[in-house]
Amino acid sequence: MRLSQFHLATVKEVPADAEIASHRLMLRAGMIRKLASGLYTWSPLGLRVLRKVETIVREEMDRAGAIEMLMPSVQPRELWEETGRWEKFGGQLLKIKDRKGQEFCYGPTHEEVVTDFARNELKSYKQLPVNFYQIQTKFRDEIRPRFGVMRAREFLMKDAYSFHLTQDSLAETYAAMYQAYVRIFTRLGLTFRAVQADTGAIGGNASHEFQVLADSGEDAIAFSDGSDYAANLEKAEALAPAAARPAPAAALQRVDTPTQKTIDDIAGFLQLSPRQCVKTLLVRGRDGLVALCLRGDHEINEVKAGKLAELPGESVLASEDEILATTGTRPGFIGPVGLPASIPVIVDRDAAVLADFVCGGNVDRTHCTGANWERDARITRVADLRNVVEGDLSPDGSGVLHIARGIEVGHVFQLGTKYAEALGATVVDETGKPQVMTMGCYGIGVSRIVAAAIEQRHDEAGILWPEAMAPWRVAVCVINPKNAPAVSAAAEALYQALRQRGIEALLDDRGVRAGSMFADMELIGIPHRVVVSERGLAAGTLEYRARGNSESRSLTEDELLALLG
Amino acid sequence: MRLSQFHLATVKEVPADAEIASHRLMLRAGMIRKLASGLYTWSPLGLRVLRKVETIVREEMDRAGAIEMLMPSVQPRELWEETGRWEKFGGQLLKIKDRKGQEFCYGPTHEEVVTDFARNELKSYKQLPVNFYQIQTKFRDEIRPRFGVMRAREFLMKDAYSFHLTQDSLAETYAAMYQAYVRIFTRLGLTFRAVQADTGAIGGNASHEFQVLADSGEDAIAFSDGSDYAANLEKAEALAPAAARPAPAAALQRVDTPTQKTIDDIAGFLQLSPRQCVKTLLVRGRDGLVALCLRGDHEINEVKAGKLAELPGESVLASEDEILATTGTRPGFIGPVGLPASIPVIVDRDAAVLADFVCGGNVDRTHCTGANWERDARITRVADLRNVVEGDLSPDGSGVLHIARGIEVGHVFQLGTKYAEALGATVVDETGKPQVMTMGCYGIGVSRIVAAAIEQRHDEAGILWPEAMAPWRVAVCVINPKNAPAVSAAAEALYQALRQRGIEALLDDRGVRAGSMFADMELIGIPHRVVVSERGLAAGTLEYRARGNSESRSLTEDELLALLG
Repeated sequence: MRLSQFHLATVKEVPADAEIASHRLMLRAGMIRKLASGLYTWSPLGLRVLRKVETIVREEMDRAGAIEMLMPSVQPRELWEETGRWEKFGGQLLKIKDRKGQEFCYGPTHEEVVTDFARNELKSYKQLPVNFYQIQTKFRDEIRPRFGVMRAREFLMKDAYSFHLTQDSLAETYAAMYQAYVRIFTRLGLTFRAVQADTGAIGGNASHEFQVLADSGEDAIAFSDGSDYAANLEKAEALAPAAARPAPAAALQRVDTPTQKTIDDIAGFLQLSPRQCVKTLLVRGRDGLVALCLRGDHEINEVKAGKLAELPGESVLASEDEILATTGTRPGFIGPVGLPASIPVIVDRDAAVLADFVCGGNVDRTHCTGANWERDARITRVADLRNVVEGDLSPDGSGVLHIARGIEVGHVFQLGTKYAEALGATVVDETGKPQVMTMGCYGIGVSRIVAAAIEQRHDEAGILWPEAMAPWRVAVCVINPKNAPAVSAAAEALYQALRQRGIEALLDDRGVRAGSMFADMELIGIPHRVVVSERGLAAGTLEYRARGNSESRSLTEDELLALLG
Repeated sequence: MRLSQFHLATVKEVPADAEIASHRLMLRAGMIRKLASGLYTWSPLGLRVLRKVETIVREEMDRAGAIEMLMPSVQPRELWEETGRWEKFGGQLLKIKDRKGQEFCYGPTHEEVVTDFARNELKSYKQLPVNFYQIQTKFRDEIRPRFGVMRAREFLMKDAYSFHLTQDSLAETYAAMYQAYVRIFTRLGLTFRAVQADTGAIGGNASHEFQVLADSGEDAIAFSDGSDYAANLEKAEALAPAAARPAPAAALQRVDTPTQKTIDDIAGFLQLSPRQCVKTLLVRGRDGLVALCLRGDHEINEVKAGKLAELPGESVLASEDEILATTGTRPGFIGPVGLPASIPVIVDRDAAVLADFVCGGNVDRTHCTGANWERDARITRVADLRNVVEGDLSPDGSGVLHIARGIEVGHVFQLGTKYAEALGATVVDETGKPQVMTMGCYGIGVSRIVAAAIEQRHDEAGILWPEAMAPWRVAVCVINPKNAPAVSAAAEALYQALRQRGIEALLDDRGVRAGSMFADMELIGIPHRVVVSERGLAAGTLEYRARGNSESRSLTEDELLALLG
């Protein structure tokens, strides 16, 4: 592409409302422009990158045997009523009324539509397994759209849905999709982890997220240094400590703690480690309040807590009024010693092996020291309640865990029969009997990948694209093209030589000064830069620099072509 | 593609609610499935064809120097208010409220959004001309969606918008787009006409429609047999007759016509040609009723009538009550003789050269014979009011006109400054002064092309795809693959040989019987069919048949490859 024939519109100013690097750099590079909250136009430059991602996703889905189709973005309410999600999906569902008053939504996902398609198209087990996918525009009416295309309302997604007669068949396609995702993110040139994920509200048997590692990531990931174990922090199991609980050594005592409400306050006041304290959270149970006890240095894992049988499916802290009414004590002084018998006490595995610990006194402005389980405080049951932390043993027994930040760009699910059951999607099996189909679903946030790649790969000057995602692999920069026809001709010849070898090149023939040309090429992240100048021409060399390197090299054209080959 | 790995779901029954061939055949071939009124899922088979069209459109747009981008489908009301189209666009605009109560629409077109993009991105004449395009999903809330994807609500469109400093520059890009469209429809293998079109409500200077010829087309097209003149019937000029009006020869007389209200009634009753009659339509003018007079055998052209200065921009027939109140006469007996002086009489060019004609008597149940302009009836002015008919002289002076039916699949417009003016989209010119940009817009109905191609090319057995649009070029049909491993192996070898030569092939390895295999391949319109059978294998030949031919030929593999090469 000749840049004079393209539309490049970089911006010097750092946009005020852009909070993260990818958002700032995409705006500054002119890859996207905001139309309205959460709605972005992809400029010609941005679209080139988006299409690179889309193409790799499509190639790998096809290679894995998935079959592409295209469903409407507008979906009728009736289908969403069949699964109950018209109400349950919540505010992210953009509801629409047409001119006749019929209700629709702008599809945030396509389980309903594809299952409806399948119940009409698939009649026999002989048609299974089949895996349909599409690359298509979705809309989620985020309450707070932000971070540019990272959390936009309208976005591009690859969604795939597989249909099976048996769980074994699903497991096979699930594994194939997992491998396809590994190939996709590897080909894209991104550092990523496939992590075990919670299946959450969507249900189902197994689920993995594909996370692009980046410090700015919203998700925390735990991974082992001794195996390939990796899980979303929500999901990562904290193993039970190997050592048993020591016998009590201290007597239970009460101390006045007039102003010390937090673990840090208490530990500081008593000059001991938060590891010697137990913190107690009162949450709303199915039947009155429930106490959750953790070691002072640990954090509650709300997903794990939400799954406790005593809780109604989610973990919600009790209000100050509820706590006061039930215990007679204010928050900050709650502890397991002397809690009303009506309150189940669920203790984290690590808190359960403490002896002689400090905890709230269940009386305003007091704490207990020398507290011991069984002797002083009830344990209803022990459970894994906490987030794993750096240095925990890996749940698979190999290595210790480290924590990294990630951006979720892909997700594979074993859905089971949830949607097929709701929509009555059956096929006849070998005996002629109708069977509800088993389903998997597999999503990739195509537009989000673009932002995630930038979060992972950027520097002060701009974006550092992996070669597979770069809008062009190499930029040919022409110094003073108008004043030096020989330079122009040499640049043109080099540009043609690159194109003939199938190397995507951008010829910067705009005639702007070298400084702003280089700044633009760095900002938009072109991996390789070649400068054609009068001086170089005289010496028979080209000045080459790799993006991210601060040193240039003089190369002959042959050396350059060999390097880029 | 191996058909056993694909999802093909043809249907034997003719769908009851499909009114036209393309709709019926797309459903029967399983290319599309209805989700709701005007909303269709493109099955894997349908999508293959849609992508073929999309690819050719993209290649030719790129070749013509247009730059691809991608705008959101959801657009804010505020922009549409700036152009006044939030109200004016009418019921086809699907309006949406988000969770915060902000108003949006699902874009039926993108003039507002692209002009907003341009006013922010384009600052200087040096950035012009530029031509942005996208291939993207649109929504028009049709009051009566029908004909499948021919008139769907959600559809795929290529829309391009060019920006210029001058009208000359616009004219240049317009010509380039015109040529790109000619290349696109030629490459697609369709019989089409580029016709002059009315610019209608969208305004602007020039406009051409690209019409795929098909008997079922909704549009009528006039084209010359002696030149390349072609125009939408709405737009085609009816030349003034060469001969002058003869002098009156007959006397004005009144005849009783108690039941004869139509031109056919009167012509039959008086035993003369409708060409000797004048029919008079009373329409609503800016200022009372207006009479439009045409020769009895001609039809009013509402677009031409709507442009008369006396009319308010559209031609609407007066009601019976209005006619009675103004003339004292009922419809069916209105004529130019003795009309109240307040009513302007606008006479079509052909009606204006009649002498001794028959017309309504302006008295219930009477007509006049021997009527003559000027002597008996006023002419306020003469104008071109009628549709051209088969055999009219071409307005460019070469040849005579013929009428064909067409399906509009593309439209190019010289928009002028309408949108740039409304949105304040300016650039500075060479003198540093801000200038409103001049715009062109260029649309192609990508999904509609698929249906239009079928309307043009089908037979009793199914679709006859042009090679460029076919889901695969050649089908390799295997007879009894399970019982004859040698046949299977030969078919597989042929399939690989075709693929190696870059010939897109479908291997029908389903093992269904020959009759239904052939019926499927004819229904889905594969241009070339090869049968691999035991008998052929023994003779060293393949049975080849071209779609649309009823005869098969025996070919060697080399002959076949040469033929498809």
